[in-house]
Amino acid sequence: MTQASAPSYAFDADARLGPVDADGAFTLTVSDRWNALGGVVNGGYLMTLCVRALHEILSFPDPLVVSAHFLRPVAPGPARIRTSVARLGRRTATGEASLYSCGKEAVRVIGTFTEFDEGPARTLIADRPPDLPAPEDALDLLEGSRLPAVTMADRIEYRVPALPGWLTGRPSGDPRAEFWMRFRDGRDADALALPLLVDAAAPVVLELGVPRSSTIELTVQVLARPAPGWLSCRATTRHLIGRHHDEDFQIWDSTGLLVAQSRQLALARTASS
Amino acid sequence: MTQASAPSYAFDADARLGPVDADGAFTLTVSDRWNALGGVVNGGYLMTLCVRALHEILSFPDPLVVSAHFLRPVAPGPARIRTSVARLGRRTATGEASLYSCGKEAVRVIGTFTEFDEGPARTLIADRPPDLPAPEDALDLLEGSRLPAVTMADRIEYRVPALPGWLTGRPSGDPRAEFWMRFRDGRDADALALPLLVDAAAPVVLELGVPRSSTIELTVQVLARPAPGWLSCRATTRHLIGRHHDEDFQIWDSTGLLVAQSRQLALARTASS
Repeated sequence: MTQASAPSYAFDADARLGPVDADGAFTLTVSDRWNALGGVVNGGYLMTLCVRALHEILSFPDPLVVSAHFLRPVAPGPARIRTSVARLGRRTATGEASLYSCGKEAVRVIGTFTEFDEGPARTLIADRPPDLPAPEDALDLLEGSRLPAVTMADRIEYRVPALPGWLTGRPSGDPRAEFWMRFRDGRDADALALPLLVDAAAPVVLELGVPRSSTIELTVQVLARPAPGWLSCRATTRHLIGRHHDEDFQIWDSTGLLVAQSRQLALARTASS
Repeated sequence: MTQASAPSYAFDADARLGPVDADGAFTLTVSDRWNALGGVVNGGYLMTLCVRALHEILSFPDPLVVSAHFLRPVAPGPARIRTSVARLGRRTATGEASLYSCGKEAVRVIGTFTEFDEGPARTLIADRPPDLPAPEDALDLLEGSRLPAVTMADRIEYRVPALPGWLTGRPSGDPRAEFWMRFRDGRDADALALPLLVDAAAPVVLELGVPRSSTIELTVQVLARPAPGWLSCRATTRHLIGRHHDEDFQIWDSTGLLVAQSRQLALARTASS
């Protein structure tokens, strides 16, 4: 994973941890280059910062399953991450990381790491990737759109078979999406980037007319190290009950291998809430 | 929820917390009446003990989303649960609970609680319940079967449209199941029982010939308080990649409302591992 140390890529530059402070916490800067709809710092990016910290303290390289509870909004700028080891095992290790912003705990993450086998993972069953036109025949989701607050859209490129209803002002009522995704600057995704990417697209609940959504909890399962190239993705909201909705997200690599799946529970906001 | 204090039901008796010890931890006894396949203490039951502890310390009655990482096996007998509050908010509160067995941390849980509205939850979209024969026309899953190590089967009743392949010695290759479930002793499920029930059935990966499975991480989303009566359930494994598989579990109440969904990542074991 020589890429992880290449500072020329935005992801590596912005998911870098600074020195450990006197209390044993990692110091870091939360970048303003990964803001999602509403101009708020993206939850997957915040989870990724915690995953980076766990990567530092655990004895295995690959995140296997990581759960994040989002407690408070985070402002771009200085932050700290406190970590602790829960268990170091023979095949897995588990730790906890809490990100503090403006002196308050904002995200708490528990993650179990492992080491994936080299080479393609033996797959007995898995969902098939979506049937998409080739990336070069698909549409650039945001070409021609103006979403200046969504700085994340400058970092990540999305290719869609057709423009989604929420973007053209006519929500479809069908909260599903299938599309291609990659980092715009050419960085290939690795296992450590997947916890960011599962939360890197607009929530499909937009297709139900919900204007905004705040993640309460997000769990990502990383299943294998992705091969280089475009990632194909499927996002699905299965329920909107009371104030809450879910979103499932799956990512396949360029060889068609399912490499990550996530689920989140989120608060459906009104325009004013 | 007057039921929760009725000691005559097995669930209430066995999910009861004892006094707080000098270190501020809840003392309790892990019952041997909720053992799963392999004779091991069921993960959902252990999560439920932690949910009970969070229920004590948080200011909201209903678990909304709870994530558990399973660190070590737990022996029936005395145990302790340490808790801490992460955030008390206006509409939700989040806390952490760690269950210690034989002096070691065995389960770590983060849970966010809320208070559900009284009455049926407003449902905009949700998966429909499975199309099952009425419980009285369905088969008792375990009638005639001898699974003496699985003490949980004495607590919970399962009604199936047809006996599953794994039980009759011919795994079907299709890791899905749909069935009815309820407590045998007549206790109706409430929101606090759902984190147990999402993990209370045999893993559907048995249909792939996997003899045993150990949960690494389990997240449950509770969507509403269930109405009294039978619960209908759907369990699905979508991937078995390398040594790991997932399982999704959904529960609908007797009115057809989706009340819980969970996902777990688990280690597929061989007969000897």
